[in-house]
Amino acid sequence: MLPPAIAIDPILESWLREDIGRGDRTTNAIFPEQSPLGTAVWIAKVPGVVAGLPIAARVFQLLDPATTFQCLLPEGTFCEANSQIAIAHGSMSTLLMAERVALNLVMRLSGISTLTREYVKALSDSSTKLVDTRKTTPGLRIFEKYATLMGGAINHRYGLDDAVMVKDNHIAAAGSITAAVESIRSRVPFTTQIEVETETLLQVKEAAALHVDVIMLDNMSVENMREAIAFIRSHSPHTKIEASGNVTLDTIKDIAFLGVDYISTSAMVTRSSWLDISMNILSN
Amino acid sequence: MLPPAIAIDPILESWLREDIGRGDRTTNAIFPEQSPLGTAVWIAKVPGVVAGLPIAARVFQLLDPATTFQCLLPEGTFCEANSQIAIAHGSMSTLLMAERVALNLVMRLSGISTLTREYVKALSDSSTKLVDTRKTTPGLRIFEKYATLMGGAINHRYGLDDAVMVKDNHIAAAGSITAAVESIRSRVPFTTQIEVETETLLQVKEAAALHVDVIMLDNMSVENMREAIAFIRSHSPHTKIEASGNVTLDTIKDIAFLGVDYISTSAMVTRSSWLDISMNILSN
Amino acid sequence: MLPPAIAIDPILESWLREDIGRGDRTTNAIFPEQSPLGTAVWIAKVPGVVAGLPIAARVFQLLDPATTFQCLLPEGTFCEANSQIAIAHGSMSTLLMAERVALNLVMRLSGISTLTREYVKALSDSSTKLVDTRKTTPGLRIFEKYATLMGGAINHRYGLDDAVMVKDNHIAAAGSITAAVESIRSRVPFTTQIEVETETLLQVKEAAALHVDVIMLDNMSVENMREAIAFIRSHSPHTKIEASGNVTLDTIKDIAFLGVDYISTSAMVTRSSWLDISMNILSN
Amino acid sequence: MLPPAIAIDPILESWLREDIGRGDRTTNAIFPEQSPLGTAVWIAKVPGVVAGLPIAARVFQLLDPATTFQCLLPEGTFCEANSQIAIAHGSMSTLLMAERVALNLVMRLSGISTLTREYVKALSDSSTKLVDTRKTTPGLRIFEKYATLMGGAINHRYGLDDAVMVKDNHIAAAGSITAAVESIRSRVPFTTQIEVETETLLQVKEAAALHVDVIMLDNMSVENMREAIAFIRSHSPHTKIEASGNVTLDTIKDIAFLGVDYISTSAMVTRSSWLDISMNILSN
Amino acid sequence: MLPPAIAIDPILESWLREDIGRGDRTTNAIFPEQSPLGTAVWIAKVPGVVAGLPIAARVFQLLDPATTFQCLLPEGTFCEANSQIAIAHGSMSTLLMAERVALNLVMRLSGISTLTREYVKALSDSSTKLVDTRKTTPGLRIFEKYATLMGGAINHRYGLDDAVMVKDNHIAAAGSITAAVESIRSRVPFTTQIEVETETLLQVKEAAALHVDVIMLDNMSVENMREAIAFIRSHSPHTKIEASGNVTLDTIKDIAFLGVDYISTSAMVTRSSWLDISMNILSN
Amino acid sequence: MLPPAIAIDPILESWLREDIGRGDRTTNAIFPEQSPLGTAVWIAKVPGVVAGLPIAARVFQLLDPATTFQCLLPEGTFCEANSQIAIAHGSMSTLLMAERVALNLVMRLSGISTLTREYVKALSDSSTKLVDTRKTTPGLRIFEKYATLMGGAINHRYGLDDAVMVKDNHIAAAGSITAAVESIRSRVPFTTQIEVETETLLQVKEAAALHVDVIMLDNMSVENMREAIAFIRSHSPHTKIEASGNVTLDTIKDIAFLGVDYISTSAMVTRSSWLDISMNILSN
Repeated sequence: MLPPAIAIDPILESWLREDIGRGDRTTNAIFPEQSPLGTAVWIAKVPGVVAGLPIAARVFQLLDPATTFQCLLPEGTFCEANSQIAIAHGSMSTLLMAERVALNLVMRLSGISTLTREYVKALSDSSTKLVDTRKTTPGLRIFEKYATLMGGAINHRYGLDDAVMVKDNHIAAAGSITAAVESIRSRVPFTTQIEVETETLLQVKEAAALHVDVIMLDNMSVENMREAIAFIRSHSPHTKIEASGNVTLDTIKDIAFLGVDYISTSAMVTRSSWLDISMNILSN
Repeated sequence: MLPPAIAIDPILESWLREDIGRGDRTTNAIFPEQSPLGTAVWIAKVPGVVAGLPIAARVFQLLDPATTFQCLLPEGTFCEANSQIAIAHGSMSTLLMAERVALNLVMRLSGISTLTREYVKALSDSSTKLVDTRKTTPGLRIFEKYATLMGGAINHRYGLDDAVMVKDNHIAAAGSITAAVESIRSRVPFTTQIEVETETLLQVKEAAALHVDVIMLDNMSVENMREAIAFIRSHSPHTKIEASGNVTLDTIKDIAFLGVDYISTSAMVTRSSWLDISMNILSN
Repeated sequence: MLPPAIAIDPILESWLREDIGRGDRTTNAIFPEQSPLGTAVWIAKVPGVVAGLPIAARVFQLLDPATTFQCLLPEGTFCEANSQIAIAHGSMSTLLMAERVALNLVMRLSGISTLTREYVKALSDSSTKLVDTRKTTPGLRIFEKYATLMGGAINHRYGLDDAVMVKDNHIAAAGSITAAVESIRSRVPFTTQIEVETETLLQVKEAAALHVDVIMLDNMSVENMREAIAFIRSHSPHTKIEASGNVTLDTIKDIAFLGVDYISTSAMVTRSSWLDISMNILSN
Repeated sequence: MLPPAIAIDPILESWLREDIGRGDRTTNAIFPEQSPLGTAVWIAKVPGVVAGLPIAARVFQLLDPATTFQCLLPEGTFCEANSQIAIAHGSMSTLLMAERVALNLVMRLSGISTLTREYVKALSDSSTKLVDTRKTTPGLRIFEKYATLMGGAINHRYGLDDAVMVKDNHIAAAGSITAAVESIRSRVPFTTQIEVETETLLQVKEAAALHVDVIMLDNMSVENMREAIAFIRSHSPHTKIEASGNVTLDTIKDIAFLGVDYISTSAMVTRSSWLDISMNILSN
Repeated sequence: MLPPAIAIDPILESWLREDIGRGDRTTNAIFPEQSPLGTAVWIAKVPGVVAGLPIAARVFQLLDPATTFQCLLPEGTFCEANSQIAIAHGSMSTLLMAERVALNLVMRLSGISTLTREYVKALSDSSTKLVDTRKTTPGLRIFEKYATLMGGAINHRYGLDDAVMVKDNHIAAAGSITAAVESIRSRVPFTTQIEVETETLLQVKEAAALHVDVIMLDNMSVENMREAIAFIRSHSPHTKIEASGNVTLDTIKDIAFLGVDYISTSAMVTRSSWLDISMNILSN
Repeated sequence: MLPPAIAIDPILESWLREDIGRGDRTTNAIFPEQSPLGTAVWIAKVPGVVAGLPIAARVFQLLDPATTFQCLLPEGTFCEANSQIAIAHGSMSTLLMAERVALNLVMRLSGISTLTREYVKALSDSSTKLVDTRKTTPGLRIFEKYATLMGGAINHRYGLDDAVMVKDNHIAAAGSITAAVESIRSRVPFTTQIEVETETLLQVKEAAALHVDVIMLDNMSVENMREAIAFIRSHSPHTKIEASGNVTLDTIKDIAFLGVDYISTSAMVTRSSWLDISMNILSN
């Protein structure tokens, strides 16, 4: 589900260069000539949903194509504490040089997947889907959205270019939702979905009349959401409805119960801790 | 305290390109010709330590050099909820296109600074310093270490090349701590500090006899730490002592009380949430 | 309507470097110290729709920020033979070094816009829109799609990532259109439109039953298209219909007459000649 | 005849990234795990001169080194309609992801080679050679000049740095052709050929007296060309003569008949259509 | 005489990044906020020919556009010991951060120019020109060839692509000089000069019969050179003659006396020491 | 002892591109299709210390992974004139295209190693170590410092970021050495060594009182050095002492005799000539 190597390799390489800099002084001095081979096991020390192992594999191979990295679990698997999740084999100096970069990424992504899964479980009785946002760590969007997907969520747009989102400032500049949407429809690729962010029922009605692809109910009261949903369903049945704002594990079920198609939140990205994973080098 | 623009601009530009992709479809269609000017205020919605505003300023300027971004607080300032922290002025389309990248960074960094400050406060009665680790988000090391510094911590090494850290695998490969350190001293720049990670008192004594620059006490019991510190202080007085492992806000004071110079933890980076900050565009 | 400078500058710079290489031997030897200033006029020598002048302006400024380049016409304007379309002013050596790159681009893009306009005019009596394809010169997609837009067309997707297009090989691999679409809907961002390419009425019916966003009628007979359109309109009214295959200036009206929403063709890109434009340096 | 992989790979990779962006949504969702293998045949649907197949092969291998791409014809071969020209084998997802980039390039280059061949055939009774110009699509100069070569032409200079071309503006700035050439000869590598563009017999005579390497007769009448050629042949016999301006398939024979060494035109690049080639995936 | 900024900036930036890495720890800690302004004078401490000051100026400006750098001497000027050669003004931290990169370059280039001038002076009584070679420090070819030019030499080709040089291995592979040259003439741009390296009179005669642009006499005895020159002058008068091999300040006059057009040597690059230049910051 | 391929490959590739440019016109025209295989021997024509062969090996492999390059000597070996030092085998065109880049680097580095060895030998009776400086050719720091290491020296810091060096301007700006060092200690990573450059005994005493890691005695008289060393040894025994300034093969023994730990000089880099090495292609 990730882009091909040609698209992500430059990012992974920049990460390795960030850590290695002018060379791994310690490893270089210990193994000045040939490095011995070694085997390393990755252990998830706490329970959680693992994501990112194939990317870790690529990190090791970019540093030295002779390294093997075997993922012991399918991506998105929930594993118990102290589970073996991967085995790497290669030159000791490669294992030590790539370790931190690869672990940092997988710990971060697995932390996101793990929290995502909790939100998704809270929606398990409804048909509402959890979606992510553009609040992602700069430089890691592709990877963090991959992690929410592995945790069971559905992705929202990846950037400013693959879907249109009309916000209050756009509406103000264009004069009205209608003016904004018409201006957009004449200029964007016809394959681009148009979403309108609404805060009032008046706005909802204007957006529904335009049959836009998605209407977002932003920070609305439960009562307003209920009314908005009813209006949209009857006046623009193919428009998808997204609720956003103040989504927590406590409130999410109630929002879903209203019957929205999607609930969006950045919590999986902005509130998750890293999953604790360590790499142990086996004695030969 | 950040590297000059020439060193960080390529990273910031890659972040803008990640979000903008083939163009901001919405803004481009709303402002197909000239964009109107606008003013935006950044508000910290919850209390916390703000870090990264000068980087946000650079993000806006890289997108459009005509934009101004005024930081209203010195970096590292603790601010109350709903504080105005910055004001941006420029073309509306620049403000909207740069918003997410700049905010994402500052929210992430301020979250780190805020948690760092809590750990630093816990050490306020001792002369022990808090230090960070190489557990940082791939691609953001310079920035996340800047955030721990702004939160009151001191940085540990930035990569594999600016200090030596001898770990168990290095020791095993070299045969002994002594063999490892001697091999290293003949090969690394003489300006490079050498740190040895120890898990036993025997290792501590061997490292102290070599007068290495830093000895790390890794995951040791309080009793062992006490004995190790006493030995090092008497046998190699200029060696710095770093404690690591199982550091929490609950345990950190007790460890400091033993008299170590540094306590290292990745918690500020791996366990912090983003600080909630929003950008409001002012009506003209 | 173009992405911001930060997104397109690297491409423009690579073009300048392609032409300049290790330096403009002629200009460097004629102006070894300071170059005199000069003014250059761009003339469209034949009638056509001009597109790309703001990009040309950026090319000159990237080479030397002191250069000015004034576009005398709005983008997409049809101009008569021998029209002045732009005026550049700056150091003679900048004018001579940037000339070829800037002209080559504008001649290519204006050629595309000019032919696009002919196709668009052929559709002027219908509500059917002309759309482009992914058949674009490698490296120039953003610019060539901009040119079709300036010529009056609407863009189709920009790449493999901003919309889904299900083709026969995907259908074969998934087992059926239904299986393919269901697999896709559970994995792509929910903001992504799904288009299905169909060659038979049976396929059209299956796609319509799935209420996909777009159905493409590929290389169908007029009779089949008529039947397909009727079926889609009645069974999935919000699905957009695109016709493709064997589109020429002779056939396009007849296809539009059937009532499809979009007709797609690569002819504007693959069959257009460059518009002849020259740059004349004025004697001082 | 192309530069080594190290020189062209970055360009080919940028093309793949242009099309793939954040990932091929369709293929990724259809083959979320392992892609099946497949075989694809390239068919030239109309007659023409095929050029660029080895570059296409490299495009597929850059995306996935396990892909094979067999060129069935030597470069520059004229083939009839419906000829098989290449066979690719590899994972289905690689074949589908690389298809458009590789085809777009070969269709463009083969279009150029095909038209080049027509011009070259028009010169078949003379010893005059057809040469190209710097009017090439930005970013594709190496490839488009390769295509004219494969079509039977000879290349002119590749950029501003590998030969000197003295134009009217240079002459005006230097004061005279003589002053310009002398200034140049003292500054450029002595291995650089110097060409002077002339529009009058007076200019021709001045250039011939300087024994420059090439004299271009730009937009001259047939009568003037005849006189110019005679003068150059007698006064500077080793100077090569190039004719330029208003070259069409109708006029080219007459110009050649005058006995010039080279006729240059951009028509192969600016007036050619893409050769229609398609890729068919074979059922397994 | 250097390529425009757009062509050399990426190289200069990579040099600054090489030295600055993750930031100038010293300067950053001394000037954590605003740096004071300062003025620095560059002094050539020993006599020599100065080259590279405009490149130094660009280095300072790339680090901080507000810096000024005034060259006090024209490039290629011979200056006495302790001459002021340039003055920089800007923020102290910029002056200190750019100092080493800029000085290293100018010291290296001026060392080359200074030695070049000695060789050129040895040729002052003849019309023979000194030329350089492709033996240049990797990554610095443009700059080191610029330095030989500033020292009074003429450049030879800049790379493998701007002139043809036929060596013994090429001759062996092609079968003969004649076969090699014919194969080349049908494939390279017609604006490319062809040089043949010869070691025997037989080879000289074969090359002269082909009227190649340049014949190099490689490591020939004086007697053979004399005979070769006479043969070439009478049989191919416009062919240029280059002598190479064992060129020293002792032998160069004798070789020139034979009447060759060019003498090539790498000594200016491979045997020169850096010119000692220092930067003094003036007290305010 | 070099960084991994991922860190140095981009530099080596940029060097190959510098020389190859738009393609090796000669080789391409001689071997337009398949190049024959060949074997090449590298010969050191004069005695010296060889360094850089593994980097040369990587250069050949980057151009064509099928090439083999066997180093016949361990790095840093002193070899006699006319020693075979390496054998390359691969396609003739690869051998000819990579030759110049690989040789230029190894000649340069071996020249540095050879001169370094002379300085190191002059210190053979003392425990003083020779160290290098930041005076290195821009873009080659990693490689030139590797060469001094292979010649027997120890490296000083690699850049502005891996150690602190307090110079007179920093002292002036901070007010005093003490103020400077205190400001630095609160801001730099605690693993960073701090060196203070001193010119007077007063400065030496202030720096020693701060127990900085290294004190440099810059351009001091022998008498002052003797007194400074005695003071430092008694007041700050773990501080390392570095002498700098006016170091030549004549003076170096006397300075070492004073008992400093390190003597730094740039002479190995700024005063060395290239070691003469040639590549001979064997007849098949």
